Amino acid sequence: MKIAVLGTGVVGQTIGSKLVQLGHEVMLGSRDADNPNAVMWAKEEQNQHALFGTFSNAATFGEVIFNCTLGSASLNALDQAGAENMKGKILIDTSNPLDYSQEIWTLTVCNTDSLGEQIQHAFPGTHVVKSLNTMNCNVMVAPDKLTEKTTVFLSGNSAEAKATVNKYLHDWFGWRSVIDLGDITTSRGVEMYAIFWQSLRQATSSQKFNIKLVAS
Amino acid sequence: MKIAVLGTGVVGQTIGSKLVQLGHEVMLGSRDADNPNAVMWAKEEQNQHALFGTFSNAATFGEVIFNCTLGSASLNALDQAGAENMKGKILIDTSNPLDYSQEIWTLTVCNTDSLGEQIQHAFPGTHVVKSLNTMNCNVMVAPDKLTEKTTVFLSGNSAEAKATVNKYLHDWFGWRSVIDLGDITTSRGVEMYAIFWQSLRQATSSQKFNIKLVAS
Repeated sequence: MKIAVLGTGVVGQTIGSKLVQLGHEVMLGSRDADNPNAVMWAKEEQNQHALFGTFSNAATFGEVIFNCTLGSASLNALDQAGAENMKGKILIDTSNPLDYSQEIWTLTVCNTDSLGEQIQHAFPGTHVVKSLNTMNCNVMVAPDKLTEKTTVFLSGNSAEAKATVNKYLHDWFGWRSVIDLGDITTSRGVEMYAIFWQSLRQATSSQKFNIKLVAS
Repeated sequence: MKIAVLGTGVVGQTIGSKLVQLGHEVMLGSRDADNPNAVMWAKEEQNQHALFGTFSNAATFGEVIFNCTLGSASLNALDQAGAENMKGKILIDTSNPLDYSQEIWTLTVCNTDSLGEQIQHAFPGTHVVKSLNTMNCNVMVAPDKLTEKTTVFLSGNSAEAKATVNKYLHDWFGWRSVIDLGDITTSRGVEMYAIFWQSLRQATSSQKFNIKLVAS
């Protein structure tokens, strides 16, 4: 399958590499066609299916699109990707609207709005599914490396798109516990959890953790 | 032990009842000395250790104090409880600054501040420990009723107070997995989780759930 990964940081590279390993054709998209991270990534993959290009190139290429850009840059990056190029496609939004500039992280949008909602609002022709944003990228692509089955969440307005993403999470990364939270407004909760996540990271001195929902 | 529980809603009553069952003397505090909820609670308990009074009466009575008031009313309730009456004592703050007036909940303070911090700031002579605010009250007092051991969190500036609360959570309610998140600023994350919690409640059609932290 042809998959676009927007963002060439560690999240984009980790997801991109996993998908290439699975045999998919992956194009890493960035602001510049010759982004050094993307060039290096493709070189290290040594795989003809590891491609790179602009946000627009990638969005055009992908049948499905991952947003792995920094939350603060996401709307701009997606503008460059182009609404027409993303039209009718699923956008799996892994981003969090974090401001990392202070020791204690804050969100640039929260409580009465969310980045997930802003993206869906800006690109009404695209099926935005917020997911995977509640964990480190190594956990995203290999949840089985944790000692127990943990939980990943879906937020989005299209039930069909969420069902498709659920299948991707299962088939590509091995997720076995996927909870559909509801429409895209439920992005608020999972994005606000990023602040809690920072505390958990500090308390556990690790990034390799996740939460598991336990009911009675 | 003499314990104050501020707030006569379902959270205060549930915690109060559990503590009375354990043989503690519990005074439920409210705005009015003859709050109907408190009167009824004491009557139903049929136990000489189930007492009620004003916020001030309760804070004076208790060696340790639970804040189980609504987040929107907490600062005012604690003002009535009286800084002098709470001085040197531990205040276990179970509240969340929720605005329930709309279908999608919001917080009245978040991101760059938290209710836990506001309470600690307003009552510097009291050891505020934010805890138990990440779950329904039935889970707070009986975590063993869930199918697995889940996690409860502590936020506070005093390591000694947190160690004491850890012991209370263990001995009184049966908590076995308690994570110290750090100082009172970490209240932000656990309070912001309340919005996520609402989504989880709707997705699971239940309030009897909690999260378990799973590391690698």
